[in-house]
Amino acid sequence: MTERLRRQLDFILTIDKEKNILRQTHLSGHGRRENDAEHAWHMAIMAYLLSEYSNEEIDVAKVMLMCLIHDIVEIDAGDTYAYDEVNKATQKEREDKAKEHLYSILPDDQKQTLISLFDEFEAFESAESKFAHAMDNLQPLLLNDSNDGSDWTSHEVTASQVYGRQSKTALGSESLFEITDEILKEHIEKGHIKE
Amino acid sequence: MTERLRRQLDFILTIDKEKNILRQTHLSGHGRRENDAEHAWHMAIMAYLLSEYSNEEIDVAKVMLMCLIHDIVEIDAGDTYAYDEVNKATQKEREDKAKEHLYSILPDDQKQTLISLFDEFEAFESAESKFAHAMDNLQPLLLNDSNDGSDWTSHEVTASQVYGRQSKTALGSESLFEITDEILKEHIEKGHIKE
Repeated sequence: MTERLRRQLDFILTIDKEKNILRQTHLSGHGRRENDAEHAWHMAIMAYLLSEYSNEEIDVAKVMLMCLIHDIVEIDAGDTYAYDEVNKATQKEREDKAKEHLYSILPDDQKQTLISLFDEFEAFESAESKFAHAMDNLQPLLLNDSNDGSDWTSHEVTASQVYGRQSKTALGSESLFEITDEILKEHIEKGHIKE
Repeated sequence: MTERLRRQLDFILTIDKEKNILRQTHLSGHGRRENDAEHAWHMAIMAYLLSEYSNEEIDVAKVMLMCLIHDIVEIDAGDTYAYDEVNKATQKEREDKAKEHLYSILPDDQKQTLISLFDEFEAFESAESKFAHAMDNLQPLLLNDSNDGSDWTSHEVTASQVYGRQSKTALGSESLFEITDEILKEHIEKGHIKE
């Protein structure tokens, strides 16, 4: 086996651990907590199916890959809940360290490519990054909506917290933000999200 | 909300169920059983990272999407273990029914596109299908290898059964089959796979 292939297979085995990183979102049907790999799989298919709603023209394959890899750093850094201000303060530092450690398992050219793609996602500037972030918001929103907003209720999340995050969906897709807004208003009205 | 978007979101929520379809493979570190969504996520990233080993030139984005959707039919049809000859006899009929039912949730153009892609995967003829099948074989092999072959041992799988499936990896990638062959020989030697 070449050194190159050995490093690629080592990385592939390492990212298996992403399946053990639990998120705060629960699966539809009031299921168990979702993990990062499942979330990324779902986002990538969504990016493909919903690409027509992107504000700007996008390279769909690039968005899909971005979705697939965007949480790999959490293997070392752990998941940081969207509304956890304490852990969000240290998130960037933890994820930068994880990024260097994990992607260094790969051959250097693939390390650089995936780090660039992850950095592009994080920068939230390109059309692809904005659409991938829209998927990152919409995916748990749909699950939570199907579960009567139970993730919002149990974390006592407020409307301003939810809108602080979800309103950024509009940067990637105005029309998907319209649906987001409808869903959120319904859950605020029902008291699942505090005003 | 348009009828088109409603159907797309219905499909997206429906495929959430793929996260509950358990496979026979266990996660690395002697973990729990893997589910179809995790397996598909892993395969899609592998397809991207290992594309240089494809025998033929491939459209990597197409292979990735093929990997992501190839098990959606199992939401209705259930997982059929690679070495379960009884259930394999009814697999095609169950999966055809599931394919029609599940993809009909989508708008017709997307239904047709995804059914074509799934049929192409199943036909095992195009370069993309052959490489996607190589990923479908290699992904559980790597996990099983990391777990001392425990999935083969517990199912009392024989060398001829494993080679019957895994030798097809060579149709997609000669070099990835070389590694496959090395790994299998080691597990036969250790008695994890019966001769």
